[in-house]
Amino acid sequence: MWAALLPVGRDPGDGGYHRFSWTPAELDCRAWFLDEARRRDMPVERDANGNLFAWWHPEDGARDGAVLTGSHLDSVPGGGAFDGPLGVVSAFAAIDVLRGRGARPARPIAVGAFAEEEGARFGVACLGSRLLSGAIDPARARALTDADGRTFGDVLAANGLDPDAIGPDPGLLSRFACLVELHVEQGRALEEPVGVASAIVPHGRWRFDFAGEGNHAGTTRLEDRRDPMPPFASMVLGARRAAERNGTVATVGKVRVTPGGVNAIASSVTAWLDARGPSDEDVRRTVAEVERAARTAASEHDVAVALAEESYSEVVGFDHALRDRVVKALGGVPVLPTGAGHDAGVLSARLPAAMLFVRNPTGVSHAPAEHADTEDCLAGVEALAAVLDDLAHG
Amino acid sequence: MWAALLPVGRDPGDGGYHRFSWTPAELDCRAWFLDEARRRDMPVERDANGNLFAWWHPEDGARDGAVLTGSHLDSVPGGGAFDGPLGVVSAFAAIDVLRGRGARPARPIAVGAFAEEEGARFGVACLGSRLLSGAIDPARARALTDADGRTFGDVLAANGLDPDAIGPDPGLLSRFACLVELHVEQGRALEEPVGVASAIVPHGRWRFDFAGEGNHAGTTRLEDRRDPMPPFASMVLGARRAAERNGTVATVGKVRVTPGGVNAIASSVTAWLDARGPSDEDVRRTVAEVERAARTAASEHDVAVALAEESYSEVVGFDHALRDRVVKALGGVPVLPTGAGHDAGVLSARLPAAMLFVRNPTGVSHAPAEHADTEDCLAGVEALAAVLDDLAHG
Repeated sequence: MWAALLPVGRDPGDGGYHRFSWTPAELDCRAWFLDEARRRDMPVERDANGNLFAWWHPEDGARDGAVLTGSHLDSVPGGGAFDGPLGVVSAFAAIDVLRGRGARPARPIAVGAFAEEEGARFGVACLGSRLLSGAIDPARARALTDADGRTFGDVLAANGLDPDAIGPDPGLLSRFACLVELHVEQGRALEEPVGVASAIVPHGRWRFDFAGEGNHAGTTRLEDRRDPMPPFASMVLGARRAAERNGTVATVGKVRVTPGGVNAIASSVTAWLDARGPSDEDVRRTVAEVERAARTAASEHDVAVALAEESYSEVVGFDHALRDRVVKALGGVPVLPTGAGHDAGVLSARLPAAMLFVRNPTGVSHAPAEHADTEDCLAGVEALAAVLDDLAHG
Repeated sequence: MWAALLPVGRDPGDGGYHRFSWTPAELDCRAWFLDEARRRDMPVERDANGNLFAWWHPEDGARDGAVLTGSHLDSVPGGGAFDGPLGVVSAFAAIDVLRGRGARPARPIAVGAFAEEEGARFGVACLGSRLLSGAIDPARARALTDADGRTFGDVLAANGLDPDAIGPDPGLLSRFACLVELHVEQGRALEEPVGVASAIVPHGRWRFDFAGEGNHAGTTRLEDRRDPMPPFASMVLGARRAAERNGTVATVGKVRVTPGGVNAIASSVTAWLDARGPSDEDVRRTVAEVERAARTAASEHDVAVALAEESYSEVVGFDHALRDRVVKALGGVPVLPTGAGHDAGVLSARLPAAMLFVRNPTGVSHAPAEHADTEDCLAGVEALAAVLDDLAHG
């Protein structure tokens, strides 16, 4: 399975993945998912929000009380091979392990692939699971645009989905008893092959729009300029300082400069801030300090600045009972928090959710160098199989 | 003529022009040029570097000692309507004025449209006139790439030009006695409808490459980061400070962030510095100070930084004798320097060159709001006609 997925959407230059929702590369990943499900006689259901579910029903035909596993297939721009796909591949592989052992689960097991988890195309992370669980207004989701100005609604329609049908699906959710998502760890905090998540720290994305005045780079005197670039630069440095001060992380990884000519003062700069930290207060204080740095510099340059919160997730503490049960099924493994958002975090508002992490030896993630050792990945599959086996009989 | 050109390559949203060399919009401008020349029975010559020349030969068939006028048709991203096209349109219009008066020039008059003046596609400004005059190595020019990675050589070949034939053309240059380029003024320094250039101040472009390490924005501790974004921000602020200190202008208007995901620490940032000032020393000192700011911040963040000079033009003082003659032909007009580069500046190394400026009431240029009053434009045509009439008989 891994070998079939590896070439899809991979930049031949730096090896980074570009699998944005409903682009050809991600559609290839979806086709791969359908193939793997068919190969296992697992009927596939695509929900109204574009999430995929492959079902293994028990012999008595039970449809409810299912154990949901899986992850996502989309990537950040220039992402690694493991973030997302490892959870989906491991889910199918864990089912192979169980079937190989002749396991006969008492509950259905479903492998899910959630849409637009990275938010790399439409800007809102975990969009598929947010819609499914009612964590985002369908009208707002429909109007989200990609870099080419196409709306999420239009892209759904072009892919055979009804944009007016998106949103929460309590009927579908009620069929799941719990969710266990396996994911590559994204820092260096896990020193054993497999661990279990305690919590997802609070995190969010904010968009800063700096609006100045485009002009000629050679003939416009400094005092006549309304250049949005210096205030943007002050915001970047303010983000680093605020993170250091508050014990959080704050990152500016995406910038849009208009018009973007070497010999033209920019008319506007849009920059995105990603901020995360141990508590809501820490994160809120960080963002407020970044905003202050941006506004102070903007007013010095006669530049307007607007701030919009694109998404925010409060701290997610995973279900204690499920977590303890998973740890017990694995005979005791490390329990650790993570700074990364996940569909399991979003869905934990609606059903008991847990996460398994596979060790990341370098801590690199969202980059081509992201890596997990094959041995650790296989340990992850065995662990997921043990957990599914336990949960599907309980 | 103006009405025919206005819609070409215009963004319907903000009204900015996007006419990059050999893109459909710029090819439409070239087709317009051929039409206007044909309409006036002016044979068109395309030189090996893609520059266009429309000829008005005197009745005695003289081919040499020509007066060259014209400007360029390409634009910066989101540029204004006047920068470039005003000089070409005014050249054709001035010929109409002369012919309407029954003028019979003793020398040929040529209307030129120089290729890639803005450097918006291949990064080197005045590329067509640099090649023609031998100011850039043809091998270097051939290898220049656009944003899609296509080389200048490949684009020439796709447009019916032989990439191996580009470079200096002394034979063509020897047929020109002098050059007069009309251009919209790009600051607010000209308070009368028409002025004459004294000099082009030194100016250049430098590329800064910051190379760090891509990683996850949520899970990578501050102390483990090699984020190229803060050093880039320090470079932007350093540019503004250095310009203030040295009485120059320094602008960062173009940035490329890789991979550019909201939730990913960038692996690299490339930024372009445009710097100009009264003297070479002022500009060199400015760039050195920006470099120092960049290197200091980069070393703090364990980020590598490389600096490359993409182009540099020393101060250009226009030919005094020609300038005085032009001023005299116009009965005395203001003489002023400019912070903008022009083909006339590049070609002034090979032949006497002069520039006419048309008043810019707001000083805005390289932006959609760039403007010149119709009355001033018509005054520019009359002035150019008077100058051509004088030079073509001298």
